[in-house]
Amino acid sequence: MKTTERGSIRYPTAGRSDRMRALVFLGAGKFRWEERPLPAIEEQTDAVVRITATTICGTDLHILKGDVPTVEPGRVLGHEGVGVVVRTGASVRTLKTGDRVLVSCISSCALCAFCRRGMPSQCEARGGWVLGHRIDGTQADYVRIPYADSSLHRVPEGASDSELALLSDIFPTAYECGVLNGGVKPGDAVLIVGAGPIGLAAVVTAQLLSPARIIVVDTDGARLSAALSLGATDAIVATAGDAARRIHALTRGRGVDVAIEAVGVPETFGLCQDAVAAGGSIANVGVHGRPVELKLDKLWSRNIRLTTRLVDTVSIPMLLEAAAAGRLAPGRLVTHRYRLDQIAEAYRVFERAASHKAIKVLLTAGERDH
Amino acid sequence: MKTTERGSIRYPTAGRSDRMRALVFLGAGKFRWEERPLPAIEEQTDAVVRITATTICGTDLHILKGDVPTVEPGRVLGHEGVGVVVRTGASVRTLKTGDRVLVSCISSCALCAFCRRGMPSQCEARGGWVLGHRIDGTQADYVRIPYADSSLHRVPEGASDSELALLSDIFPTAYECGVLNGGVKPGDAVLIVGAGPIGLAAVVTAQLLSPARIIVVDTDGARLSAALSLGATDAIVATAGDAARRIHALTRGRGVDVAIEAVGVPETFGLCQDAVAAGGSIANVGVHGRPVELKLDKLWSRNIRLTTRLVDTVSIPMLLEAAAAGRLAPGRLVTHRYRLDQIAEAYRVFERAASHKAIKVLLTAGERDH
Amino acid sequence: MKTTERGSIRYPTAGRSDRMRALVFLGAGKFRWEERPLPAIEEQTDAVVRITATTICGTDLHILKGDVPTVEPGRVLGHEGVGVVVRTGASVRTLKTGDRVLVSCISSCALCAFCRRGMPSQCEARGGWVLGHRIDGTQADYVRIPYADSSLHRVPEGASDSELALLSDIFPTAYECGVLNGGVKPGDAVLIVGAGPIGLAAVVTAQLLSPARIIVVDTDGARLSAALSLGATDAIVATAGDAARRIHALTRGRGVDVAIEAVGVPETFGLCQDAVAAGGSIANVGVHGRPVELKLDKLWSRNIRLTTRLVDTVSIPMLLEAAAAGRLAPGRLVTHRYRLDQIAEAYRVFERAASHKAIKVLLTAGERDH
Amino acid sequence: MKTTERGSIRYPTAGRSDRMRALVFLGAGKFRWEERPLPAIEEQTDAVVRITATTICGTDLHILKGDVPTVEPGRVLGHEGVGVVVRTGASVRTLKTGDRVLVSCISSCALCAFCRRGMPSQCEARGGWVLGHRIDGTQADYVRIPYADSSLHRVPEGASDSELALLSDIFPTAYECGVLNGGVKPGDAVLIVGAGPIGLAAVVTAQLLSPARIIVVDTDGARLSAALSLGATDAIVATAGDAARRIHALTRGRGVDVAIEAVGVPETFGLCQDAVAAGGSIANVGVHGRPVELKLDKLWSRNIRLTTRLVDTVSIPMLLEAAAAGRLAPGRLVTHRYRLDQIAEAYRVFERAASHKAIKVLLTAGERDH
Repeated sequence: MKTTERGSIRYPTAGRSDRMRALVFLGAGKFRWEERPLPAIEEQTDAVVRITATTICGTDLHILKGDVPTVEPGRVLGHEGVGVVVRTGASVRTLKTGDRVLVSCISSCALCAFCRRGMPSQCEARGGWVLGHRIDGTQADYVRIPYADSSLHRVPEGASDSELALLSDIFPTAYECGVLNGGVKPGDAVLIVGAGPIGLAAVVTAQLLSPARIIVVDTDGARLSAALSLGATDAIVATAGDAARRIHALTRGRGVDVAIEAVGVPETFGLCQDAVAAGGSIANVGVHGRPVELKLDKLWSRNIRLTTRLVDTVSIPMLLEAAAAGRLAPGRLVTHRYRLDQIAEAYRVFERAASHKAIKVLLTAGERDH
Repeated sequence: MKTTERGSIRYPTAGRSDRMRALVFLGAGKFRWEERPLPAIEEQTDAVVRITATTICGTDLHILKGDVPTVEPGRVLGHEGVGVVVRTGASVRTLKTGDRVLVSCISSCALCAFCRRGMPSQCEARGGWVLGHRIDGTQADYVRIPYADSSLHRVPEGASDSELALLSDIFPTAYECGVLNGGVKPGDAVLIVGAGPIGLAAVVTAQLLSPARIIVVDTDGARLSAALSLGATDAIVATAGDAARRIHALTRGRGVDVAIEAVGVPETFGLCQDAVAAGGSIANVGVHGRPVELKLDKLWSRNIRLTTRLVDTVSIPMLLEAAAAGRLAPGRLVTHRYRLDQIAEAYRVFERAASHKAIKVLLTAGERDH
Repeated sequence: MKTTERGSIRYPTAGRSDRMRALVFLGAGKFRWEERPLPAIEEQTDAVVRITATTICGTDLHILKGDVPTVEPGRVLGHEGVGVVVRTGASVRTLKTGDRVLVSCISSCALCAFCRRGMPSQCEARGGWVLGHRIDGTQADYVRIPYADSSLHRVPEGASDSELALLSDIFPTAYECGVLNGGVKPGDAVLIVGAGPIGLAAVVTAQLLSPARIIVVDTDGARLSAALSLGATDAIVATAGDAARRIHALTRGRGVDVAIEAVGVPETFGLCQDAVAAGGSIANVGVHGRPVELKLDKLWSRNIRLTTRLVDTVSIPMLLEAAAAGRLAPGRLVTHRYRLDQIAEAYRVFERAASHKAIKVLLTAGERDH
Repeated sequence: MKTTERGSIRYPTAGRSDRMRALVFLGAGKFRWEERPLPAIEEQTDAVVRITATTICGTDLHILKGDVPTVEPGRVLGHEGVGVVVRTGASVRTLKTGDRVLVSCISSCALCAFCRRGMPSQCEARGGWVLGHRIDGTQADYVRIPYADSSLHRVPEGASDSELALLSDIFPTAYECGVLNGGVKPGDAVLIVGAGPIGLAAVVTAQLLSPARIIVVDTDGARLSAALSLGATDAIVATAGDAARRIHALTRGRGVDVAIEAVGVPETFGLCQDAVAAGGSIANVGVHGRPVELKLDKLWSRNIRLTTRLVDTVSIPMLLEAAAAGRLAPGRLVTHRYRLDQIAEAYRVFERAASHKAIKVLLTAGERDH
């Protein structure tokens, strides 16, 4: 693609190359890496970002399966990424072309009552989770970001660029919905059910608060090994069938102070209920497709706190600092790396993550990366 | 009953009157007001209290129905009351005979990890809910209180004696499990489902934190009238079938910031889930006999907090002060008053509370009251 | 002044009446109500508001005395007010001409790290306290408001218009810097030193959290009477010289849980230190012109929390709701009312507040008010 | 000393060896290691502990200088230590002879309003800081501990015995008064002024909450080296005279989120005021002998929180777990080790700590240790 320089920013020339490539959802089970028009500024609060790295989320797989009816065919997928600002709308105040930025998976209008409370996941304007959902997303050469001032984060010096794509969604999700909502504190016994990308990011971010014990349950031995190498103290193979009993044995019969549910099915939610200590908390992170059973007959008198949350990404500034200081090393979760134009292949690997021992797949813009 | 004075305290003489009367559970559906031996100091941390006022709790009715299998026939019922200390064990440090005290429905050993965290409901020693449950209770002339130093509260000057019996259980339950766990704060919209004694105590104690709106739902018009007279801003007859819709209409479509469940059945718990706003909380107070459905498919992304709690009664000192200052007026919930020896009749009225328009039944020790 | 209608909004015609009147600071001790050009949109985030009511703050008197060197001669004073939006910059998203609004005394850029934390008082952009300080203020027919979307609050239906001007500054200041920072909770003993407008607003807003006792200290009997009529439980004349002793007598020798300093001189700050109980807090609200003595030799071991804060006005939405619901009645603090063009006279009265028994002086736009 | 076995516990025989040795304060500047009667159970809540390890606190040096007038000549010093329970009063419920215990420097009655709030430092009974102060302390073969149930902590398996003596006082003091009161959280910039034993324990325990930066200021290069080896990120020699400027340079001009004062003189308290960022906190840990200047003229509008606290030791159970898990390694602060009967020599070294490069001096009971 031929480009012309605007300052230090390469942007396709309008005459000949007003097109880019993007991963487009075409209906259940179908997608294609294809040409699309370059995104334009639609609202004066928008910015356009050239993507230098992105990744694929489990949610993208759900969309592909047709499980997310609010995503219409023709949509460019992706809600994670890092890149460079190439255009800004007239109202954008804090960003300029050339700024290296992390894309938040949640867009924030910054002004509604929810955004003011630090809860942009529930934005009453046109924010919330919209990228790769209600508007085109980040698995493309370029993406339009609404409310750019409050939905992009400048990357601090010293942070490795491409791996920061894991801070768009999975790290803040694990930290906010799991670790913070669960109230992890020094000395706690923490259970994390599910060692997928989110569960593993919970293993990493829980350590910011120094629990005494981090017990991870999964069905996949490779993922449990990854959990242990990332700092979990105990790994339990869920198929053993007696996970709750073993958790109690590891905690002197008390149960865990915090149970983080990172799968999203009734069985794993049930395990959290069986494992939590009196006075403890259950932090739901998993995306649930159906109601679950809540054992209130047992829990009503046990002083339990249960939380749900769609990530608000308010922790991204702190996580960026931690990454820049070398304390987070999000790249440890990346098992596979591709060029962005190989994303179709990357999807096929990620769809069969277990057989490929894939945790997180990173896509970078190849020769055009910084 | 002939008594002799010990200091200013009348206690039956050992020779002739070593017996008292008590309401004794005799198995499902059966109880009797009968003679029993006077309670003795069994542990050096015990005190014996002469009851001057007590009341009947909904839990007592559940026991009578046989729904609480941990209560054995022969048990004296009751976990609420005020009275006068008549004997203290050798280790009791802060109380002496003659002290006027409020009995906490929860006994606290003060030393286990849970009691130190302010969570004696989960006491790991022999505290927790034991009165009228695992040991003899307060619906009697005298009661033995374990861990007296940390399970009795001296009554401040100026507080009306007998009505304070409502501070043994229902007021701290409503306040701790409902109002505090729900996080009620100034300006909030609060929903209280169930206008029984606990729900009405929640109406009263929620006002300590100045919510803008207190919406009460019940099936009983008389109870709704009571709620309105106690300070609720809106009353909804549950049988209308469209309670959730009406709650949203009252809150500009947002739902309530705090939903307090004070019934204990799946339907009312479901209403709380339908009525809660994004970012809000559900505080369960009801005693549930079976699991409920949790609509995680809807709530997983709505930033909800759900809490359960058996009352810890840590708020009793504050509530006693508020009552002494005239700000609580717990007697407003008392609809029927009897002498203690009329308790069998009181039970019969309370068992058919709706037809008697009974909220709380107060029993006082007659001529021996202060 | 001749006006033309734009929709329902009257705005002076550009040709003949491009001028307004305003209260202009002319250097220490000098001010004048004079003609000025109408304010224009300077930044696209600005709005212009026609003032319907404003008031005079103690800070304005400090400016007049020359005590605030950052205010330059020629500045229009005033940082409180209600009015109607008459023009909006191109980036303004949530407001339109005709909206009735409350002006926050603190402007918020909504985007800097401090504004995102809910601390716009420390705004790193051009917000913070700027109105009537670094830019022209609200004691005028019209005022330009920067960052209008996040610095104006729509007035809810049912709230009395002009009295809401007290919610621009003194009510959120009293509530945030005093009541919330002090951590007032049900049952507390609260001390408020200083019964000026802020201290009296603290008396009112502290009651939202149901302290058992509100003790007010001042030198002025009329102000103490006002405090008692607004809900204080005890009033102490500071000149008695033994205020600390009397406060301890009122609190069984314990001292107060929360001491709110609302004067700003070393003596009153010292009284707060003498009066606070172990484990209590001192919330400084007063504007201090010099350092004070902190008795760390006595306080180091007493588990005290001391806070300072410039109001962030994040509580304005809640206070507006409370006012609309009739729970705040801010007008109770208004002792004198004038037309806006009588503001020079109002200043003269407010400068000698004690002799006029003035608490808060309200100025309304006369025939042009709604 | 000849002993007889009682179970597995050696206790001197009553007939011949009813005496022990102890470090006795004899008035300003004078002390002696001398024979004393064995402590007896005085209250039924007491226990007697045989000391296996103890240490010397900076406070002990202050006492020796005569700076603590509440300590009378004849007092056995010391408020830190680990040991074995050898006798228990009749009311002691949770401990038995032979239990290995950590002595809390704060005794807790467990029942007063302060102890119930988790604030035994302010105990209204005969607890608080009494050991080695108002009653005989731990620098002895045996010590009587009042309120033993709530003032001793059983040592978990796997924890190194003697080094745990540092958990009696300095670790909980650093953590509670500094780290927790300061509100340290992930990503924060933390300043610790003073790298004595408490300051260094703050360096260690702050890391439980993963601040991004820990800046330590001291005048002593050896202590700064120790700080860096324990995990501080930056060390500043206080004598440079421009500490505040350098702290701002390290924090992009913002200042620190949390400033922990661990010296106790006006200069270091002043540095904390100069270094704290808007919205930050100052946690005072130092013992101050005189008032300090509080720069309210600068801080009144900067949203600062300042805390004071005498340690409550409520964090000891968590710290014991962390130590048992190998995460605390308190022994890293021990620079000198002696037998208990060499304590006079140890005092002489600790009195000239700088020239001996002494941080913490550990005394163990020699052949009688486990």
